[in-house]
Amino acid sequence: MRSAAVVGTGLIGTSIALALRGRGVTTYLLDRDPETARTAAGLGAGLAAVPRTPVDLAILAVPPQHVARALHEHQHLNLAHDFTDAASVKAKPQAEAAALGCDLSRYVGGHPMAGREQSGPLAARGDLFQGRPWVLTPAEGAGRRALDRTMELAELCGARPVVMGHEQHDRAVALISHTPHVVASLLAARLLHGDEAELQLAGQGLRDVTRIAGGDAELWTDIIGSNASAVADVLAEIVLDLRVVVEALADLGTGAPERPRISREHLTTALVRGVQGRGRIPAGVVSGPAAAVSGLRLSGAAVGG
Amino acid sequence: MRSAAVVGTGLIGTSIALALRGRGVTTYLLDRDPETARTAAGLGAGLAAVPRTPVDLAILAVPPQHVARALHEHQHLNLAHDFTDAASVKAKPQAEAAALGCDLSRYVGGHPMAGREQSGPLAARGDLFQGRPWVLTPAEGAGRRALDRTMELAELCGARPVVMGHEQHDRAVALISHTPHVVASLLAARLLHGDEAELQLAGQGLRDVTRIAGGDAELWTDIIGSNASAVADVLAEIVLDLRVVVEALADLGTGAPERPRISREHLTTALVRGVQGRGRIPAGVVSGPAAAVSGLRLSGAAVGG
Repeated sequence: MRSAAVVGTGLIGTSIALALRGRGVTTYLLDRDPETARTAAGLGAGLAAVPRTPVDLAILAVPPQHVARALHEHQHLNLAHDFTDAASVKAKPQAEAAALGCDLSRYVGGHPMAGREQSGPLAARGDLFQGRPWVLTPAEGAGRRALDRTMELAELCGARPVVMGHEQHDRAVALISHTPHVVASLLAARLLHGDEAELQLAGQGLRDVTRIAGGDAELWTDIIGSNASAVADVLAEIVLDLRVVVEALADLGTGAPERPRISREHLTTALVRGVQGRGRIPAGVVSGPAAAVSGLRLSGAAVGG
Repeated sequence: MRSAAVVGTGLIGTSIALALRGRGVTTYLLDRDPETARTAAGLGAGLAAVPRTPVDLAILAVPPQHVARALHEHQHLNLAHDFTDAASVKAKPQAEAAALGCDLSRYVGGHPMAGREQSGPLAARGDLFQGRPWVLTPAEGAGRRALDRTMELAELCGARPVVMGHEQHDRAVALISHTPHVVASLLAARLLHGDEAELQLAGQGLRDVTRIAGGDAELWTDIIGSNASAVADVLAEIVLDLRVVVEALADLGTGAPERPRISREHLTTALVRGVQGRGRIPAGVVSGPAAAVSGLRLSGAAVGG
């Protein structure tokens, strides 16, 4: 890859551009707010200009609900030979792009699994994706060249390409990212009902469990709203689990003599399952560019890397 | 304070003993498992022996449901002039101690707000309480000397004494510790339903939000079970909040045309409230021994320190 264009120079777009510049790729920066693109350029992320001839790959680093329109517009303008995006939801933008009549042989969905609480180009870091998974969700019919270039993009950013179906990706991020975000937010929102003296007792545990709730609410509304069904499914299961615990605690609290032992067991079971579930989180960041491929059938596109 | 006895030489008891030894207090170590007390003694936490004359203060570092019986037993044996405990729940042990006929003029409830995921004496650290709040919950009728010595204990451990009513304490820890623990556990338990490829995408956010769910399930059953009503109250509110979000997401997911804007607003509101609630957590650890007093009426006991 010799040239790239980043559309949307926020945290993610600018971080990608910084990584590409560091690997010698000529990188163009576009944003609907020209000032934001100039800020990114000032950080050394590339040129705040529209390329005169199509670049090898355009990265649409815009919120999920703008991906399909951005793809349609920039394919029409012939910005690049191939396209990818960086949105944290994959099925809905893919379906919208199909509905708009985009050329899907020249597009492979992407999701670099990294972020920060801060947003905007000034929070960008060229090493943001180092060692992190970068999910690729090529649809049936995606072209080999588009897949190869998207995979090369991930590797140039120091990330670990992981190929998945978009439905599986969306279920995965509902489970490991979007649902935890909602739950952490509702937990943090409860603190609005505590008084000052009570909150003074807070420790590192509360800080950790609510940290992700500090993220930008509008951005996360877009993300979670674009993956609404998958998130609703997991949350509905949590509501059921919570009701079991609330009932057990109500029994224990009133000291209802009929079933304190069973109530206690329900509580313990919930906590033991939490310990077990936590044990399933991989221990650390796996680094290296080896692609993990999870059994996806690709039409006209083999997996390189 | 010249002499102290720690009853229960687990993580908290041994950490207290190490801090007291570091300040030159003669410290006796008792545990129903003599091997555990000897392990603590081997770490330099004090003498694994029963004192021949009553010590100034005994610290009952046992789980919440054993506090009242331990107080009754050791007051009967005349282990110490005054007593405190280190349990993370205060109302129920206090009520149980009253029911057993303990001498409550010689007892002040305590709760050092610090911990680690590991348990047992080998995880103990003499600086565990440095700069942390240490809640004191003197009941009406608590003696001045018992309160002074408990406050001195907190200060000797480098903690910040905070006087509160036990009901307020229990509401506070339900909000900032016990409810987050349950919620983090249920969130982590959901990971049992993800497949390996999905979990490989997990990042620091998921690790942080579920970290406290790694705690010992039996110990936390005791803690949460002893504060059941207060925790059930907060959890029930979270269930209501969750149902609003699930309903909003179900609307957004089906694209039901009648109220997508309102559903989106419900989601944003939940996330904004999360950002606001998170903003109420005090920024860092406040150090120094100044006592924060939160307007508690003390009968026969003024607040020193």
